[in-house]
Amino acid sequence: MTGLLTLTTDYGTQDQYVGALKGVVIQTAPEVRMVDISHGIPPGDILAGAWVVREASRYYPGGTVHLVVVDPGVGSERTPVIVHTKDQWFVGPDNGLFSLISEGSPVEAFTIDRPEHWLANPSSTFHGRDIFAPVAALLASGTPPDTLGSAGHELVTYRWAEAILDRDGIRGWVVHVDHYGNLISNVPASYLNGIASAESLKIYVGNTIIARVHNAFSDVEEGDPVAYIGSSGTLEVAVNRGNAQELLGISKGAQITIVFQR
Amino acid sequence: MTGLLTLTTDYGTQDQYVGALKGVVIQTAPEVRMVDISHGIPPGDILAGAWVVREASRYYPGGTVHLVVVDPGVGSERTPVIVHTKDQWFVGPDNGLFSLISEGSPVEAFTIDRPEHWLANPSSTFHGRDIFAPVAALLASGTPPDTLGSAGHELVTYRWAEAILDRDGIRGWVVHVDHYGNLISNVPASYLNGIASAESLKIYVGNTIIARVHNAFSDVEEGDPVAYIGSSGTLEVAVNRGNAQELLGISKGAQITIVFQR
Amino acid sequence: MTGLLTLTTDYGTQDQYVGALKGVVIQTAPEVRMVDISHGIPPGDILAGAWVVREASRYYPGGTVHLVVVDPGVGSERTPVIVHTKDQWFVGPDNGLFSLISEGSPVEAFTIDRPEHWLANPSSTFHGRDIFAPVAALLASGTPPDTLGSAGHELVTYRWAEAILDRDGIRGWVVHVDHYGNLISNVPASYLNGIASAESLKIYVGNTIIARVHNAFSDVEEGDPVAYIGSSGTLEVAVNRGNAQELLGISKGAQITIVFQR
Repeated sequence: MTGLLTLTTDYGTQDQYVGALKGVVIQTAPEVRMVDISHGIPPGDILAGAWVVREASRYYPGGTVHLVVVDPGVGSERTPVIVHTKDQWFVGPDNGLFSLISEGSPVEAFTIDRPEHWLANPSSTFHGRDIFAPVAALLASGTPPDTLGSAGHELVTYRWAEAILDRDGIRGWVVHVDHYGNLISNVPASYLNGIASAESLKIYVGNTIIARVHNAFSDVEEGDPVAYIGSSGTLEVAVNRGNAQELLGISKGAQITIVFQR
Repeated sequence: MTGLLTLTTDYGTQDQYVGALKGVVIQTAPEVRMVDISHGIPPGDILAGAWVVREASRYYPGGTVHLVVVDPGVGSERTPVIVHTKDQWFVGPDNGLFSLISEGSPVEAFTIDRPEHWLANPSSTFHGRDIFAPVAALLASGTPPDTLGSAGHELVTYRWAEAILDRDGIRGWVVHVDHYGNLISNVPASYLNGIASAESLKIYVGNTIIARVHNAFSDVEEGDPVAYIGSSGTLEVAVNRGNAQELLGISKGAQITIVFQR
Repeated sequence: MTGLLTLTTDYGTQDQYVGALKGVVIQTAPEVRMVDISHGIPPGDILAGAWVVREASRYYPGGTVHLVVVDPGVGSERTPVIVHTKDQWFVGPDNGLFSLISEGSPVEAFTIDRPEHWLANPSSTFHGRDIFAPVAALLASGTPPDTLGSAGHELVTYRWAEAILDRDGIRGWVVHVDHYGNLISNVPASYLNGIASAESLKIYVGNTIIARVHNAFSDVEEGDPVAYIGSSGTLEVAVNRGNAQELLGISKGAQITIVFQR
């Protein structure tokens, strides 16, 4: 543990929720350094939460603790957990999100079951403040995970849709839409490496056909759609200086089909 | 004073306002630790600001300083104050907000009247940067309040609407609507403890009737309204995996009526 | 360099972008103190980014490093730069924004051209994470700028529209609209000092005529338009307890004409 704790929630920033959670961390372990990743995950959107935390956490030092509370089922029977995977620690409700971060990497998971470390009389709707904040703060400050929970938990397991590659082309999906309206797909860059020329393919997304993969937005005219390898290492579709989600009328879950021209 | 300073404003985060204020704090007292509670209070909404700061501040260490600038009347004759109540310190304009935090607890209030601690030539519209930031930074770093102002100020006093309990039922009001659209009322959990069975009441809110108090959202079907005791210790009404404000067409100030069935 | 690094971007806060960038700063120079100025600059809005950073940065200690990534042309041929002006350091793409901050003050600019300090294999679309974050972190932690780049760069130069003063009046423009909908002009307070009486002018903005300059919003009735000298030292137009942009139907770029009545 590094004394570093990142925070990701769907709490928004207009209410007391983030501030109360941070107060609990400070009261529990004032020496822990907190860094906000996002409090703007759409309410209950486990896929978006997993995407954001997976993509951000790989840039943090090994041993960083990530508090992740995106919890459509707060109060239901999902288990509060500590998860160790990919050399990082994660704390939050086990609603499938953590399996989307581990993606099959080895996982060590602990059931959080030692109420003596929680706030007294935890509420039924704000486990972030009452359970996860004190546990994450203690973990980040060096308390061993088996003091905070019990080893041996099996994670609820979800899987990302995976793009399908064959000799004729690729079928993929939009798995995240970002703040700019850029459409981020699950088609890895490696699936496109075998194509001899960048002009030997057609990309179908909604009603739009894109004839090649460019290096950057600015390789096309303003207002034109553009496909490129994005900062997460997968194919993305954007509109140069525009919002592709709005202008192309495409949202998360849409299919992207790539046909090779031989 | 703990060296800890929280920030709550209605400045939003798209402009320079929060950044300038933080720069002044750093120039004044670089060792003070700043924590954002919220900069998303609706413009000039004193009730929302009071709600958020009251609910967050109780999770901070005794002696924490809270800068609170939600100020529909900036430039008018409200007094800049330092307020000590509930073992916390508050700094901002005295427009009634602080009385909604103290709620009748003992208060010690100081008029901020020593311009030698402010920025030179304070603007008439940005007292947060020019007056409150340097004063709050000094207070958080250990400067005694009577060096920064004069004791004996009487707070402008507002009162929260209070729920009314009688033998037939309870009349309460929605006092805050959060980011999820959950409707937070002023009906304390204790008013409901006397009810023998959770099924022996009816809750009327807008056109909706809810027949009992559940433990959590997930105790009802998706899309159904649900009443429960929220994380602030009062009755809340939500829609499981939905936005109650939008789906029930109810907003802040709406009445909630609870009829006991005997 | 002060060990202090501020962050301003158009990334929004719903994605992993800000969190990943902060992770890179922490991995590069964990001792650097990060402060968010804004991640809510409208996408690609260089004027808004320049306005916000110019107005915030003047409240920071000399030697502070400001990371500023508002980059409509990411991937195009604009140069990554380190800029020293007004006793502050700035890091980001040279797309004209920095010249709007320096405004003719002496500038020392370095081309960032030492990839050994960047993340390996930088993406073509996220230079904030891959190039600017490590360079800014190193600069803030004391690495000399000529270790990170080459001196002698000439900035791309934009100029703010300047208000025009003659004996009959002033022609100015709305250069920023803030979170409240207040209209901030480029008319400096000094242009109005020569006017004998505050009542001896008329201000025309859109279809509205304002007959004098007040001290504060609250000097007019609720819902009325008001002109005053704002916290940036220029003339602003607002609506007391309302949103002037919406209520007056005026947005950035609109002309403000002031006619002196003699």
